[in-house]
Amino acid sequence: MEKTRAPSSHAQRLVASPPGGHEEKSPPESSVYMDYNATTPLEPAVIQAVTQALQDAWGNPSSPYPAGRKAKDIIGAARESLAKMIGGSSRDIVFTSGGTESNNLVIRSVVTHFHKTHTAEGDPAPRHSPAEGAVPHIVTCTVEHDSIRLPLERLVEEQVAEVTFVPVSPVSGQAEADDILAAVRPATCLVTVMLANNETGVIMFYGPRIGALYVRGLGEHTPLCPMLFGGGQERNFRPGTENTPMIAGLGKAAELVTENCEAYEAHMRDVRDYLEERLVAEFGEKKIHLNCQFPGVERLPNTCNFSFRGPQLQGRAVLAQCRVLQASVGAACHSDHGDRPSPVLLRCGVPVDVARNALRLSVGRSTTRAQVDLVVRDLQQAVARLEGRGGTPSGV
Amino acid sequence: MEKTRAPSSHAQRLVASPPGGHEEKSPPESSVYMDYNATTPLEPAVIQAVTQALQDAWGNPSSPYPAGRKAKDIIGAARESLAKMIGGSSRDIVFTSGGTESNNLVIRSVVTHFHKTHTAEGDPAPRHSPAEGAVPHIVTCTVEHDSIRLPLERLVEEQVAEVTFVPVSPVSGQAEADDILAAVRPATCLVTVMLANNETGVIMFYGPRIGALYVRGLGEHTPLCPMLFGGGQERNFRPGTENTPMIAGLGKAAELVTENCEAYEAHMRDVRDYLEERLVAEFGEKKIHLNCQFPGVERLPNTCNFSFRGPQLQGRAVLAQCRVLQASVGAACHSDHGDRPSPVLLRCGVPVDVARNALRLSVGRSTTRAQVDLVVRDLQQAVARLEGRGGTPSGV
Repeated sequence: MEKTRAPSSHAQRLVASPPGGHEEKSPPESSVYMDYNATTPLEPAVIQAVTQALQDAWGNPSSPYPAGRKAKDIIGAARESLAKMIGGSSRDIVFTSGGTESNNLVIRSVVTHFHKTHTAEGDPAPRHSPAEGAVPHIVTCTVEHDSIRLPLERLVEEQVAEVTFVPVSPVSGQAEADDILAAVRPATCLVTVMLANNETGVIMFYGPRIGALYVRGLGEHTPLCPMLFGGGQERNFRPGTENTPMIAGLGKAAELVTENCEAYEAHMRDVRDYLEERLVAEFGEKKIHLNCQFPGVERLPNTCNFSFRGPQLQGRAVLAQCRVLQASVGAACHSDHGDRPSPVLLRCGVPVDVARNALRLSVGRSTTRAQVDLVVRDLQQAVARLEGRGGTPSGV
Repeated sequence: MEKTRAPSSHAQRLVASPPGGHEEKSPPESSVYMDYNATTPLEPAVIQAVTQALQDAWGNPSSPYPAGRKAKDIIGAARESLAKMIGGSSRDIVFTSGGTESNNLVIRSVVTHFHKTHTAEGDPAPRHSPAEGAVPHIVTCTVEHDSIRLPLERLVEEQVAEVTFVPVSPVSGQAEADDILAAVRPATCLVTVMLANNETGVIMFYGPRIGALYVRGLGEHTPLCPMLFGGGQERNFRPGTENTPMIAGLGKAAELVTENCEAYEAHMRDVRDYLEERLVAEFGEKKIHLNCQFPGVERLPNTCNFSFRGPQLQGRAVLAQCRVLQASVGAACHSDHGDRPSPVLLRCGVPVDVARNALRLSVGRSTTRAQVDLVVRDLQQAVARLEGRGGTPSGV
């Protein structure tokens, strides 16, 4: 941490009162947010970009006069910033409403394209019925986000595609390349494997709620069949009046990542490693199971997924006892799924009783070592209360 | 105008410099925006709501701790505000990314539902092939927005639905109820007719770029089949992490409409009527054709669609000569469609040479009579230049 600047002013808002203080009297001040994989606060520069666009770039980007051109220019600049961040071409960026839409769009697109190319007039291949094996085939893995898994299951249900869910290795927590390749068939039209699992960490973006899809060689080498039809925006790949302010914010977020990526990563890795050290030091190796340290496997630098060992120490129960920590047991979308252990962890080979106790702590650009100390102390008191060993005088 | 307050502070920004001033030296100051049907500036209270949510409600609405609950509460309040505005139940509101998505969603949904109910196990009706006439049928009219027309044309192309496009009456500019009813068949599963055409005016909202769909009795009396699959948000009808800030802004915009609807409408009608009076007074009845004054037919209070008569006075040519007016010739989505006359006007019975010259001026909450005077003077100079009668000394 010492080697990098804390890039965000959220530090002030999130920094807790000192240990031993009166945190129970002012809970909002003393909370520590460690659920950056659920969502992140916005960088002040991103809020500024969104607000500025709300005020000044309200014109319809399709309108030819200045109010519209200003909006169009802002969208163009954001597209360039995103392309620069990922090292791609701005022509290959399509703005969408978010990740769920982007994932659904790609999946529907490959199926539509497969059917088009297999039923096009003049195509030498005859029109096959599904029974003849000309159904499109998709390869994925068993730990995907619901916005991949559910649309794929839907295609299977509708009998318009076949899907192979490749299991992840319990040794590495990864879908192995050999297993993926072995699943590929002649009719395979998409292999979709997440870059990083959100329960072991998802790419940090600090941007607003909006999406962008990158398709290399969009419309030239790679087809994209739109899911929506309308006013022609995004070259007809994704019509609908552009959400200029959110796109402006996404562009600013991309700029920040391009400029500071290494510093962000070094900072998060430092704080996350410190968190894991402190957990093991305070609770002992027997009490703590680090769920995602697969030897020799790279993982995202901000995520610590661990379980306390003990029959009363389910993840949700521990979090409910915490006074300071705001974190989760897995993907936020599933916060109402009750006490079932994470299917992702189970598929990674984590035993049921350990998976049921899992906590996912994900740190951010402004998380500090001092906050880690507070969180570890909070967890000690929570575990003590659950094990009937009491806690602070203000305990339950 | 005198009877109503001007509800927006945008008036200051949009008010032009006085006639005869030095407008050509500072074009941004002297422009008058009359394209509120393309998009509207945001009310300051809406910008405030969005900005506040960007800062304070950045949590994932699915997270159970305070940061998430705050976002969830804001979304709930916005849902209530929208329901109140339209006099419906908040349970029947689904947030989407915008109008294009909402329209596509409803259209896809009825087709999916039709197929489901006609192929369900235990259904007494046998599974029909398309040739047997059990293809779903949709009724619409010929002047719909592209986000209705194009998905419907797509369904016809895919042979999964039949669509009747009912022509609008050249007398009323409306799709007549009798014609719509006559088009209904046993397999008709959707009748979709826009409440108001965007070239004669679309409902004013002054909200941010986000959508909401109202479905009466959603999931109980009326089915809605999702187009996206993912993390379960919006009761699975529209998954994807909610765009809290934009939803907050939409809620605020709805509140303002609920409180001020009559005042907004009275103000816009006053200014629009004044505009039409002034146009006729300055140019004479022979030179001006008001394209959307169908006798006895209600129209939106903010829109004036008119044509100058004359071979050199195409809509785009007139706008290009204007120094002050920012307006359009039709839907913004089509701003790159060249000089083709609006198909909507043609289908409403406007002659080709008149339709080619059409201008769509749409006023807003903060448009003033003084701005109307400026615009009329600007149009006089533009027309004079196009007809070779010169203009101001600073003319082309």
